[in-house]
Amino acid sequence: MDDARQNDQLGQWDRDSFLHPSTHLGQHARGEAQGRIIRTGEGVYIEDRDGQRWLDGFAGLYCVNVGYGRQEIADAIAKQAQELAYYHAYVGHGTEASITLAKMVTDRAPDHMNKVYFGLSGSDANETNLKLVWYYNNIRGLPRKKKIISRWRGYHGSGLMTGSLTGLPLFHDKFDLPLSPILHTTAPYFYRRDNFEQNEAEFVAQCASDLEEMIEREGADTIAAFWAEPMLGTGGIVPAPTGYWEAIQPILDKHDILLVADEVITGFGRLGTMFGSEHYGMKPDFITIAKGLTSAYAPLSGSIVSDKVWKVLEQGTDENGPLGHGWTYSAHPIGAAAGVANLKLLDELNLVQNAGEVGTYLNRRMKEELADHPHVGEVRGEGMLCAVEFVEDRARRTFYDPSRKIGAKVVAELAKSHVIGRAMPGGDILGFAPPFSLTTDEADRIVEATVKAVNGAGL
Amino acid sequence: MDDARQNDQLGQWDRDSFLHPSTHLGQHARGEAQGRIIRTGEGVYIEDRDGQRWLDGFAGLYCVNVGYGRQEIADAIAKQAQELAYYHAYVGHGTEASITLAKMVTDRAPDHMNKVYFGLSGSDANETNLKLVWYYNNIRGLPRKKKIISRWRGYHGSGLMTGSLTGLPLFHDKFDLPLSPILHTTAPYFYRRDNFEQNEAEFVAQCASDLEEMIEREGADTIAAFWAEPMLGTGGIVPAPTGYWEAIQPILDKHDILLVADEVITGFGRLGTMFGSEHYGMKPDFITIAKGLTSAYAPLSGSIVSDKVWKVLEQGTDENGPLGHGWTYSAHPIGAAAGVANLKLLDELNLVQNAGEVGTYLNRRMKEELADHPHVGEVRGEGMLCAVEFVEDRARRTFYDPSRKIGAKVVAELAKSHVIGRAMPGGDILGFAPPFSLTTDEADRIVEATVKAVNGAGL
Repeated sequence: MDDARQNDQLGQWDRDSFLHPSTHLGQHARGEAQGRIIRTGEGVYIEDRDGQRWLDGFAGLYCVNVGYGRQEIADAIAKQAQELAYYHAYVGHGTEASITLAKMVTDRAPDHMNKVYFGLSGSDANETNLKLVWYYNNIRGLPRKKKIISRWRGYHGSGLMTGSLTGLPLFHDKFDLPLSPILHTTAPYFYRRDNFEQNEAEFVAQCASDLEEMIEREGADTIAAFWAEPMLGTGGIVPAPTGYWEAIQPILDKHDILLVADEVITGFGRLGTMFGSEHYGMKPDFITIAKGLTSAYAPLSGSIVSDKVWKVLEQGTDENGPLGHGWTYSAHPIGAAAGVANLKLLDELNLVQNAGEVGTYLNRRMKEELADHPHVGEVRGEGMLCAVEFVEDRARRTFYDPSRKIGAKVVAELAKSHVIGRAMPGGDILGFAPPFSLTTDEADRIVEATVKAVNGAGL
Repeated sequence: MDDARQNDQLGQWDRDSFLHPSTHLGQHARGEAQGRIIRTGEGVYIEDRDGQRWLDGFAGLYCVNVGYGRQEIADAIAKQAQELAYYHAYVGHGTEASITLAKMVTDRAPDHMNKVYFGLSGSDANETNLKLVWYYNNIRGLPRKKKIISRWRGYHGSGLMTGSLTGLPLFHDKFDLPLSPILHTTAPYFYRRDNFEQNEAEFVAQCASDLEEMIEREGADTIAAFWAEPMLGTGGIVPAPTGYWEAIQPILDKHDILLVADEVITGFGRLGTMFGSEHYGMKPDFITIAKGLTSAYAPLSGSIVSDKVWKVLEQGTDENGPLGHGWTYSAHPIGAAAGVANLKLLDELNLVQNAGEVGTYLNRRMKEELADHPHVGEVRGEGMLCAVEFVEDRARRTFYDPSRKIGAKVVAELAKSHVIGRAMPGGDILGFAPPFSLTTDEADRIVEATVKAVNGAGL
């Protein structure tokens, strides 16, 4: 395999020309790091150019929700490319695909949310939402009400403002982030609570009072929105503590603070419900969508807005003329066609229900096998999301020195079984987010490979 | 046609569900504005669902450079969707399409630029560049050197920071932009110079001294980069004044200020050269690419970086580990496959040369017909870009009151001839940016329709 790669001009072109995202640039360019060139995929499996096959336990980056190689979506993309690959959506223009998808998305969204803007990525959808939040308060005559509260360990993108919303140092360091006016409140991460003595209810009360204090300190009249994933994703795959949203939602309502639910990971079924907001009983004013909208078959994201917000936006353009916001590729027909086919497939194959059921099975089996391991602090998850967090000392909850790269080691061991998991940033946390089509047999394979990898890494 | 639209549930879904970019939301939702639902396209023509056919003189939004309905690109997209619609490019992962495209882009880029990062949109590519500019100066130990100078009337996106780089009020008003630390210097827009008495050389000297003064006032040690399109696009389609880049480039070099060339419009041939930087003799450190990279057949953008910048980025990851930057859909395989097919087609059909030649013809013909019109202040263009700027009083260069919407009126008149042009923001300016495959006959049709529209609008 190494020989084949060395003789391969693709490998050379890759090292010479390609600036990869989230990569150690030096190691990659010098050929010191093992990249993989992926050729094809089917179901939960991908295959590289050397014919190696992998069970993709992370569905790309939590996104290939319906699994690889779906003929229905490939056909929809091909048909759209044939008929009309592109036209813009500015000044009220549309295509059958983009309009149909708008209808399908709003039909699936919470009842009080009936309009959707389409972008390309989760990051740009959060960017759109932030612009609309500010516009909203300007139109309402509240120009000071502009600060945003997000949470440590939240992930909302990797742009300048969206990376500021993100609450992870990896995305801040050396980039001078976070920028003003983004504030971060307590991460809803019970296992990593500051005070290890607190029980879950006490911790939730703490999260709520930390938020209230921040609002009071800053002044509610300066806070526009609270930005949050229903449960933390890239920050560690952490279900919201019991009672968290019941405690947070009234605080937002009381202070006229919009709730932006970032459902890039949870939207369209990953928690076993169409949206995570539904799962947790949240009442968002904006929902950010991306990955699950097309299962990544083509880039497309979206911003779903509530009727309350829409009314003000409409007033805004009545008073000021057309909205000064748009991407050339907003509502791109190829993405829209992929989205229509993807949402149909989700329904036809009952994949949201399967995500809930097999996800529950995966989490139960992982807990049975690893929850009592001396170097496992917690096994946790919800729907088709599952994480195993490693600790040096379980009783004292002391973490490994990051320089030991325990998470990365476990992932490397896992790869020996040809199973892909992800070493989450911000701790030694192994994450899984498989396609929704996962079977219980495939879930078993993930669990067995994980046990083997944990032992293989010498934990 | 109206009856057909009224009985069509697509129209209703559109008004009920779809939040369109750059649109008057109220008018659209109430059905007061005429949107078009586009069904297909071929060459320079698009066709709507009612069977109406239009000569698209703006190539979508300056982006369908090879023209509509190219079988080669549709086939490449279909094949990629069949083989592997998605895998991510994080941690050194790639696909044959993304690696091949990286090689093709860097082969076409200026000699000193050999690495490319792939995103989705021009906006997100500028976002990437801004992050990398700050990272670059942090790694170099110059943490204060972070301000960005862009230009009034520049267009660099519609996000929060990229909309701040943009120098047009439409994209700032009601969104609280521009944000710090973005500064704007004089628009290189000779026709709209403050002092109408200045000749072109004097105006260029003014632009250069305005820039020097800003640098001195702020301190060169606080300025990281100068952000500029080779020629203004959305700001009015304005070729750089003669001698402009010869005057600007040495100022940047002298003060260790990076040049970010935003070639979203000009990249891959619109000026008759592969890049606008080449056309104007610029020496950029970053080139932002998007539209022409795939001719919009699928969303894909890019950031090409110079060897000088790359070296520091490599040092940065050697010192700090993987780069904390990436989009899930960076280097998306569908976009990459479209890009490979598109760049091949550009070469095979000699479209860059055609853009230069027929673009020159279009500009010459437009000047012959309209340059002396009493309400035309200027006809200008370069390559396959052409603009007609309207004035109330030609001798005194007084502009129409914006409330008269002269530009929009001309565009509406033009539509009666089934030709699409664009009313540019920031003035009564009619813009054209046709596909590169435009023939001289089609150019004649645009010119004739424009003359008719100018008269029809009562100018």
